[in-house]
Amino acid sequence: PANKKLLVLPGDGIGPEVMREVRRVVDWMDRRRHVSFSIEEGLVGGAAIDAEGHPCPDSTVEKALRADAVLFGSVGGPKWDSLPFENRPELGILRLRKDLGLFANLRPAIVWAPLAQASSLKADLVSGLDLMIVRESTGGIYFGEPRGIETLPNGMRRGYDTESYTEEEIARVARIAFELARKRQNKLTSVEKANVMQSGRFWREVVTSVGRSEFPEVELSHMYADNCAMQLASRPKQFDVILASNLFGDLLSDLAAAVTGSLGMLPSATLGAPDSSGRRHALYEPIHGSAPDIAGRGIANPCAQILSFAMLLRWSFGMEEDARLIENAVEKVLAGGLRTADIMVPGAARVGTSVMGEAVVREL
Amino acid sequence: PANKKLLVLPGDGIGPEVMREVRRVVDWMDRRRHVSFSIEEGLVGGAAIDAEGHPCPDSTVEKALRADAVLFGSVGGPKWDSLPFENRPELGILRLRKDLGLFANLRPAIVWAPLAQASSLKADLVSGLDLMIVRESTGGIYFGEPRGIETLPNGMRRGYDTESYTEEEIARVARIAFELARKRQNKLTSVEKANVMQSGRFWREVVTSVGRSEFPEVELSHMYADNCAMQLASRPKQFDVILASNLFGDLLSDLAAAVTGSLGMLPSATLGAPDSSGRRHALYEPIHGSAPDIAGRGIANPCAQILSFAMLLRWSFGMEEDARLIENAVEKVLAGGLRTADIMVPGAARVGTSVMGEAVVREL
Ligand SMILES: CC(C)[C@H](C(=O)O)[C@@H](O)C(=O)O
Ligand SMILES: CC(C)[C@H](C(=O)O)[C@@H](O)C(=O)O
Repeated sequence: PANKKLLVLPGDGIGPEVMREVRRVVDWMDRRRHVSFSIEEGLVGGAAIDAEGHPCPDSTVEKALRADAVLFGSVGGPKWDSLPFENRPELGILRLRKDLGLFANLRPAIVWAPLAQASSLKADLVSGLDLMIVRESTGGIYFGEPRGIETLPNGMRRGYDTESYTEEEIARVARIAFELARKRQNKLTSVEKANVMQSGRFWREVVTSVGRSEFPEVELSHMYADNCAMQLASRPKQFDVILASNLFGDLLSDLAAAVTGSLGMLPSATLGAPDSSGRRHALYEPIHGSAPDIAGRGIANPCAQILSFAMLLRWSFGMEEDARLIENAVEKVLAGGLRTADIMVPGAARVGTSVMGEAVVREL
Repeated sequence: PANKKLLVLPGDGIGPEVMREVRRVVDWMDRRRHVSFSIEEGLVGGAAIDAEGHPCPDSTVEKALRADAVLFGSVGGPKWDSLPFENRPELGILRLRKDLGLFANLRPAIVWAPLAQASSLKADLVSGLDLMIVRESTGGIYFGEPRGIETLPNGMRRGYDTESYTEEEIARVARIAFELARKRQNKLTSVEKANVMQSGRFWREVVTSVGRSEFPEVELSHMYADNCAMQLASRPKQFDVILASNLFGDLLSDLAAAVTGSLGMLPSATLGAPDSSGRRHALYEPIHGSAPDIAGRGIANPCAQILSFAMLLRWSFGMEEDARLIENAVEKVLAGGLRTADIMVPGAARVGTSVMGEAVVREL
């Protein structure tokens, strides 16, 4: 029965190409696993600007609110680079996060065994790496008011933003991070600049108190954001789960992704709060961008988008077994020596987007 | 003639130990180069809290204002970790930056040829690395008002800070970065999050206009902070000079330092604006911290502190030749195989702080 409602938002650049490969996986599930999805498509980013004049039209938000889960591609490209701030493709994803209340951005940084050599770091420092960054994603300086560019009474201009977190905003994302840690190595590192920021001091206080009262068994430590950046670049395997604000999480999760050396392999999930029936809004997207330089050439790596779909099965539908099946299929394809250009190594077989996608389905 | 007034602030942890080795270098200059310094000492950080109840007593600020240059060690340690926000050792350095108007923090990230193996990155990605990060250091979210922790009318608590930059604050630090780029590879990368922050948009606008009108020959590019973190961890050699706000500069300069693999080797300078006679306040410090875990054991690496003194000679006194002499001496000592514990490799000779310091003086 088609009871699982998916909204697919391919977006711009390589988004549509890699999304096509996910459709093959969905078809396979339909045939072999007897799970069927009712799939709607929507517009977002530059594609939505071109068609409807807005990077995230109301119709897309409405579809997203009705869906059980959103599978997102990527947005942006040179075509829209000179648009004014209020109308950039990026606002597509920012509005979806905000309007769907998707406050917890889960960003795994995993080094797949066959790809340890792809990292810029020495292989022994990253092989087996498996960390999870939980980034707050509807608050902080991304949305804080007041913000703007203004002329002061003395004629001087200034630009300003507000970093602001309420207790509840910190506590709810902290709970997600603690819960994840509990299912993993039981270690949570909370990151801020409590030494220079008041919001950082407050962040540390709230996380500490949530830990003490609700997760006393999880080993909690605190780290300044500058130190965390250093540690990620030098000894990334010391971490299990990292919790950070929207802004620090943005930098640190991209850094962790770079450390793995295979951006084209990394998915992410962004979750909202469960309602009384346990349903929650959720959006899944690869962490790579729209890669306009290689778009339309059929060479993009579809794995991150396929693995985002696996995360969707796990987090939105509790389909752990199916998620694993897909992840294992991807790993086998890599172990078999197939590589898209971004993860190419000497001796491997270089393939394009669709051969890679087909190979994953064949493994399945 | 003792016309060069230095204020030495050893601070906490390994600060006093490594500063002792600088004194040997100063003595050598006195004897061989006939340059003499009149040196005053002052209290800062935990040491100042213990002696005078404040991490940066007025007496220290007054001495610093009178000095031609400040040589700073490092501050902080577990003893003072539980002090209230307003009285932490870190405020020592923050107050000095602010009260002396030291708005441009210059953080070189250099890989010394004999140390390329020390990096967590593959040697070919970092060998020959020589980049400079210019970090704004008296503005932004470090000092922006309003800030605090408050209880809202609805009973909810929140913590908040303000990121704020005036045109002049951005322009003056941008000029320093452009000037540096002009003396180097002529390439400046300005970093912000113009896609989500208003202050970032403004930052980009002001830097662009300073570049256009005053440094048209410097190749200017703009990069989002998250992307910059990724690029530093994967292809650091693409950069020449990086310009960033106080907060982004904090993370990115520490990240760049970690990428070199030898934190114990990296100095920094923080400069104010020149007055009408060309004099400027300036402070020099190693980028490593007070390292309380190894303090007092005589094993700390004194090179970063010695190299901070070399930067001081170059930037505050225009003594380029002497600065080079010291830098070359350090490089020769490394090439000769001496290593402190932090940069130890198999086959090298492990030495302590004072043997390392003596070796540098012997090379001189
Ligand atoms: C597209 C952009 C606004 C976004 C962000 O900064 O959050 C991106 O970098 C991300 O991490 O999802
Ligand atoms: C000590 C601390 C306040 C400081 C900072 O965050 O600026 C340090 O990390 C630095 O980079 O000098």
